[in-house]
Amino acid sequence: MRTALLAASAALALSLPASAQDESKVAPAPSEIVAAAPKADWVGIPAEDLLVMTLAPDADGSPRTVVIQLMPAPFSQGWVHNIRLFARSGWYDNISVNRVQDNYVTQWGDPNYDNPEATGKPKPLPEGLKVMGEAEYLADMTYSAEQPRPILPPDTYSSNNSFFGGFPVSGNGAGRTEFWWPTHCYGMVGVGRNYSPDTGSGAELYTVIGHAPRHLDRNIALVGRVIEGMEHLSSLPRGKGALGFYTAEEAAKRTPILSVRVANDLPMSEQPAFEYLSTESATFAAYAEAIANRRDPFFITPAGGADICNIRVPVRRVAGGG
Amino acid sequence: MRTALLAASAALALSLPASAQDESKVAPAPSEIVAAAPKADWVGIPAEDLLVMTLAPDADGSPRTVVIQLMPAPFSQGWVHNIRLFARSGWYDNISVNRVQDNYVTQWGDPNYDNPEATGKPKPLPEGLKVMGEAEYLADMTYSAEQPRPILPPDTYSSNNSFFGGFPVSGNGAGRTEFWWPTHCYGMVGVGRNYSPDTGSGAELYTVIGHAPRHLDRNIALVGRVIEGMEHLSSLPRGKGALGFYTAEEAAKRTPILSVRVANDLPMSEQPAFEYLSTESATFAAYAEAIANRRDPFFITPAGGADICNIRVPVRRVAGGG
Repeated sequence: MRTALLAASAALALSLPASAQDESKVAPAPSEIVAAAPKADWVGIPAEDLLVMTLAPDADGSPRTVVIQLMPAPFSQGWVHNIRLFARSGWYDNISVNRVQDNYVTQWGDPNYDNPEATGKPKPLPEGLKVMGEAEYLADMTYSAEQPRPILPPDTYSSNNSFFGGFPVSGNGAGRTEFWWPTHCYGMVGVGRNYSPDTGSGAELYTVIGHAPRHLDRNIALVGRVIEGMEHLSSLPRGKGALGFYTAEEAAKRTPILSVRVANDLPMSEQPAFEYLSTESATFAAYAEAIANRRDPFFITPAGGADICNIRVPVRRVAGGG
Repeated sequence: MRTALLAASAALALSLPASAQDESKVAPAPSEIVAAAPKADWVGIPAEDLLVMTLAPDADGSPRTVVIQLMPAPFSQGWVHNIRLFARSGWYDNISVNRVQDNYVTQWGDPNYDNPEATGKPKPLPEGLKVMGEAEYLADMTYSAEQPRPILPPDTYSSNNSFFGGFPVSGNGAGRTEFWWPTHCYGMVGVGRNYSPDTGSGAELYTVIGHAPRHLDRNIALVGRVIEGMEHLSSLPRGKGALGFYTAEEAAKRTPILSVRVANDLPMSEQPAFEYLSTESATFAAYAEAIANRRDPFFITPAGGADICNIRVPVRRVAGGG
C-alpha cells in the first residue's frame, strides 16, 4: 500500500509549482483520498438496515436525530431481528437515555428496566423476540467469499483485524476461515444485558463514547453503529449514579427518545440514504495506509501503524428517496 | 502476573461459603483490586503539579472545576514551565473552550488566536516563555533508575508500552534505554500548535475526548492529564465549524474559563490533594492483569490483553491541606 500511495503523491507533485514540490507538503490527507474516491467505491446502505432515532429537541429547541446502521449477515444474528421488531411495534417510542458513563457508553431503553435508579414498573416486551445464546457473539464465516478483508496486523486484542460490510471485525484465527466478531470501536452500538446466560433482547442499547472497550468483544452483542448524529449521544451530561446511570434525582436529565423507525417504513420522501466506502476498494486501502503513515503537512513523525478503531469507515449521506 | 492473581483469587475463595466458591464468581474486578491496595501503594501528587481550572457554572448554575496533573520530569519539558507561567501571570483567566470535535479533542485558549472562527485580535503572550523544539517530544531516559515499568507488550503504535510517574508512555526501543514518549490516551492534555516547526507555547491546550489518537504521539507535546472533572470537557456541545471549532454564530457556546491556578498557589485550605496508584506496585500489576483477563461475573470471554489506554492509572482525591 505504501508504494501505491507514494506513486500517487509523486504524480501530484509534478503538477504543482516547483516551490510546492516538497513531498511532505503534497501527500494527501486521508480525507482527501476519500474525497477523490470514484463513485463505484461507494456502497449504498439498504433502508432496511437504517434506524432513525428521534430524540427530544435540545435546550435550544434544535432537533436531534440519530441514524444507526444495523449490521449485515452473518453478524446481524437474532438481535437485529429483535431490534426491527421493537422499532416496528413502537416499543422504543417514549423510552429514554438512562445512562451516560464518561469514556465508556451512552445507554438507552426503558428507564424502569434493569436500572438501579428505577422508580416504576418495566413495560412489557413485545411478542416474537428471539432468545440468543452466547455462541452468537461470534460469526463462523467458512465461505471464502465471505472472508473479511483487508487483513490488518494483529493487535493486543486479536490476531486478525479487518472489515466486513463496512464494519470493523476482529478474529483469532491464524487462517481466514475462523471465527470473527464485531469490534467495540467508538460509535458502535451494542445490546445491554444482565449477567450470563442472559444475552439481552435488544430492548436496551448502548453506544461507545470513549476509548474502544474491546474487553467487551465476545461478551456482548454488537448490532450496528451510529452513522449520523453521534454528537447527540456523546455530549449528553454524565450520570452521577453507579455506572453512569442518572439517579432518581437527575431523572430530568434522561433525554426522551420520541421514536425509532426502520428507514424502510418511512414515507419515501423522508427516508435518509447513506453510502459507505467499500472496505475492499483500492481507495480504502490507500485511506487506511495514509492513516497509518500520516504525511500531510501537520505531521512530523508518522506512526507507522493504525489501530483498527482509528480507521473509521467513511460514510456519507446521499440524496434520498424523496 | 496471571499466576499472582489466580493465587489471590484462590485465597479469596477459601474465605467464602462453599456456594460462592465458583472461581468465576469470586475473581475480583479491577476496581476491587484497587480498593484493596495498601496505603503504601499510593503516591501523592505535588501541589506544584496540579492545575485547578474553573469553568463558568453550567446551565443549572452548578460549578464546574477541572483538575489537571502536569507531567513529571523528564517528560515535563519546557511546555510545563510555560503552562505554570501562563497560569501564574493570569493569562489563562477569561479564555474559553473554542473547539470540541467529536471523538477527538476539546481545546481551550484565546478564542482569537489560531482560530479559523476568530473575530478579534489575539491577546499578547507573557514574557519568559520557552521555545521548544520537536526533539523534546521524546524523553531520552538513559538512567536505568528512570526506566518506565512495567513493560507491556508491543502494539500497533510502539514496540514498548509502559507507565512512568503515573503516566502512560510508549517507546520504540527494543531495550529499555531508548527514547520514550507520552501516549495520547483519553483525558491526556496536549499543546495545540500550528504547522511545524512551531511546537506550541502552551497557550492553547486540548484534551482527548475519544478513541486514543496515537498518530499524534511524537507530533504534539503532551503535558498532563485530566484527573477530575473530565466530564465538564467531554460533554460539551460539539462545534459545527471546521475541526470542531465553534463558528462565530455559535460564539455563545464557548465555555468561559474563569481562572486556572497552580494548586500550590491557592490558600492551603483550598488546595485539592490527589494520589495515584504507583504503577510499579504489585497492586498495579494485579490491576492491569485483571483488566486484560476480566474474570469478574459479567464476563464470559476474557480478552487476554489490554490496550495501554484501557489500563487507566487509578487516581483518588484525599484530604487536602485545609
